[in-house]
Amino acid sequence: MSKKAFYAQSGGVTSVINASACGLIQAAREHGITVYAGRNGIIGALTEDLIDTDKEPEVNIAALKHTPSGAFGSCRYKLKSLEENRAEYERLIEVFKAHDIGYFFYNGGNDSQDTAHKVSQIGASLGYPLTCIGIPKTIDNDLPYTDCCPGFGSVAKYVATSIREASFDIKSMSLTSTKVFVMEVMGRHAGWIAAAGGLAHEKPSDGPHLILFPEIEFDKEKFLAKVKECVEQHGYCSIVVSEGAKDPSGKFLADAGSKDAFGHTQLGGVAPVVAQMVKDSLGYKYHWAVCDYLQRSARHIASKTDVEQAYALGKAALEYALAGENNIMPIVKREQSSPYKWSIDNVPLSYVANVEKKMPLEFITKDGFHITDECREYLLPLIQGEAHPPFKHGLPDYVELENHPVIKKLAEEFPV
Amino acid sequence: MSKKAFYAQSGGVTSVINASACGLIQAAREHGITVYAGRNGIIGALTEDLIDTDKEPEVNIAALKHTPSGAFGSCRYKLKSLEENRAEYERLIEVFKAHDIGYFFYNGGNDSQDTAHKVSQIGASLGYPLTCIGIPKTIDNDLPYTDCCPGFGSVAKYVATSIREASFDIKSMSLTSTKVFVMEVMGRHAGWIAAAGGLAHEKPSDGPHLILFPEIEFDKEKFLAKVKECVEQHGYCSIVVSEGAKDPSGKFLADAGSKDAFGHTQLGGVAPVVAQMVKDSLGYKYHWAVCDYLQRSARHIASKTDVEQAYALGKAALEYALAGENNIMPIVKREQSSPYKWSIDNVPLSYVANVEKKMPLEFITKDGFHITDECREYLLPLIQGEAHPPFKHGLPDYVELENHPVIKKLAEEFPV
Repeated sequence: MSKKAFYAQSGGVTSVINASACGLIQAAREHGITVYAGRNGIIGALTEDLIDTDKEPEVNIAALKHTPSGAFGSCRYKLKSLEENRAEYERLIEVFKAHDIGYFFYNGGNDSQDTAHKVSQIGASLGYPLTCIGIPKTIDNDLPYTDCCPGFGSVAKYVATSIREASFDIKSMSLTSTKVFVMEVMGRHAGWIAAAGGLAHEKPSDGPHLILFPEIEFDKEKFLAKVKECVEQHGYCSIVVSEGAKDPSGKFLADAGSKDAFGHTQLGGVAPVVAQMVKDSLGYKYHWAVCDYLQRSARHIASKTDVEQAYALGKAALEYALAGENNIMPIVKREQSSPYKWSIDNVPLSYVANVEKKMPLEFITKDGFHITDECREYLLPLIQGEAHPPFKHGLPDYVELENHPVIKKLAEEFPV
Repeated sequence: MSKKAFYAQSGGVTSVINASACGLIQAAREHGITVYAGRNGIIGALTEDLIDTDKEPEVNIAALKHTPSGAFGSCRYKLKSLEENRAEYERLIEVFKAHDIGYFFYNGGNDSQDTAHKVSQIGASLGYPLTCIGIPKTIDNDLPYTDCCPGFGSVAKYVATSIREASFDIKSMSLTSTKVFVMEVMGRHAGWIAAAGGLAHEKPSDGPHLILFPEIEFDKEKFLAKVKECVEQHGYCSIVVSEGAKDPSGKFLADAGSKDAFGHTQLGGVAPVVAQMVKDSLGYKYHWAVCDYLQRSARHIASKTDVEQAYALGKAALEYALAGENNIMPIVKREQSSPYKWSIDNVPLSYVANVEKKMPLEFITKDGFHITDECREYLLPLIQGEAHPPFKHGLPDYVELENHPVIKKLAEEFPV
């Protein structure tokens, strides 16, 4: 009997991480491999709380391809270093051994690729060889080597669509109403998501007119002058701001804001701070939106390219493992930009672990407020194609899995 | 030669107000009637800034059906009463007379229906009889007689979709991350939009678990107890809050919030206030989103029912006018709820002018935190069907009209 596979979802979820799960599980079924999923990610492995995906109806597994979030549960739980907590790694191996698991698939971002890499090393050193494959996932788009990260393309499409729609709205009302609109998007450390908003801007009058990146030190005077110029020229100004935008002292603009009645700093978001700044200095009527989780869960406006890549990477992970590859992460390789052609390749986990891909500075215009044509050429393919989910009763019809537990085999519990 | 028609968009725009314009203009073209649109709404009429829609290519007019916002420009400009500013009404008649306009179509909410009604009276008293027809539009869904207001169904679909997606997201992460999510929606005076979020909740574990309505006095202790109960039962709590939610003293919760560094009240939205309250009292990690304009411009997730009704009402307005009706507003009449059947009818403008339709209290559950089955039966038909816009380069392909100006005929300018 062939070894089983373990699969876990890690960190912040996306609208397509389940598409990777779908690709992996469907490929595993074809090859007669049983997949156990960790309930709530790696915590499920540590606590022996496993889900038998063989018991999940085929139609449910197929529906993962159009369902956002982490269908088996994800977690923010970073395994400590081997020196700090060897017991955790030993426990993982113990659980895998007890359930005859020979493949470890970890679907996540930088941390998770590092963990997968470590697990592989520990398995070998404990005499329990384990095939370890990372599957990329992160809306932050900051994994190296891969052309992009599953989850990012769909956030990009959501953000560009939303700022286009809101810009149309403001434009039509600006004579007598709101003149400045600020939309806050995710990306605490890099401006990839904010940059994606720039795709809605196809000619000078189109919103967004300004983008505030974490990479560019915020210059209040320059910013206000730009807003004024824009309102005078186009009648309104539409702005995308990254939650990671920082003032010259390196402090998040979001923290510059307000205090509550007790003097505590209010966790208020950066959009209202920027909007208020415009109002105080220029007197323009403003509105602001904070997309927050809506952007990363918006499967209804997912990029078809993103969905297909997520699926292909999950499938490739399984196939690489069966082909004898180990300690690798499948990646998307860009063959050409226009028309976009991509293929699946892979890189060693050691290349990826804890390496962060920054946004190239040449993707930002010289004035620091928009994206360059080079950036547009990179981003545009990633939002191509629609992958509308099925609808039922007027709403997207997402699946909730049955998630049948695997009977525990170990006597001891493991506290996490 | 038959008289021309004047059409103007008024007040806050929606994702389907252009569908009404499309219905009206396409019907007018069929009947050989020229439509002049007001640039920036009624201001365009006062300033004789008219747009000749005959010069707009047919393909552009057709694209209005899938384009959000107000394609001719809208405005927040309420005509004063006849006593206060008779000159405005006289100017309107003067402009209409100069351009041989015999039909006045005003696409808006309560105020606009009142204006249309007044214009009709003035025209008659000034010896310039004018056919005045209101076309309903408002995401607030507060016009009487009509089953619903164009624009509302699409906001409802956006809000229910978004809270469903975000709830899936939070649920999958709640073991180790965010436990409470708060999404703020529009509706300063009525909870129609907040109620729509409730459609995503089909069984007890589904989000949203709680809805905060403007109609229900906010009870902090009761609310916090509910949040706690929900987190203990389901592992997380997903909340929709109306921007109009008020504390027992009648003050908006949004204003209860924070002060900036200079002690000014920060216009912070209600979502962060509610989220912070949960954090301070219960200690749960939270996230929040503010939908703002994204919700009313989200044509990409519009309700097909809403688009069709908006179009049908615009078309009916023109046809009623040609059939000799005057001083009326076409409405949607619900024939039955399940399956939904509707037809077009009309009511006198005098019935509608300045009358506000409240949300029935029996639409809110006894505990004040959710919607009843009766409410669901009313709302559900309004979000049925998808009307995906065409996409180009990965983004919705919305039209910007050429908006050719009509040559002015009057010597005098009119300051507004």
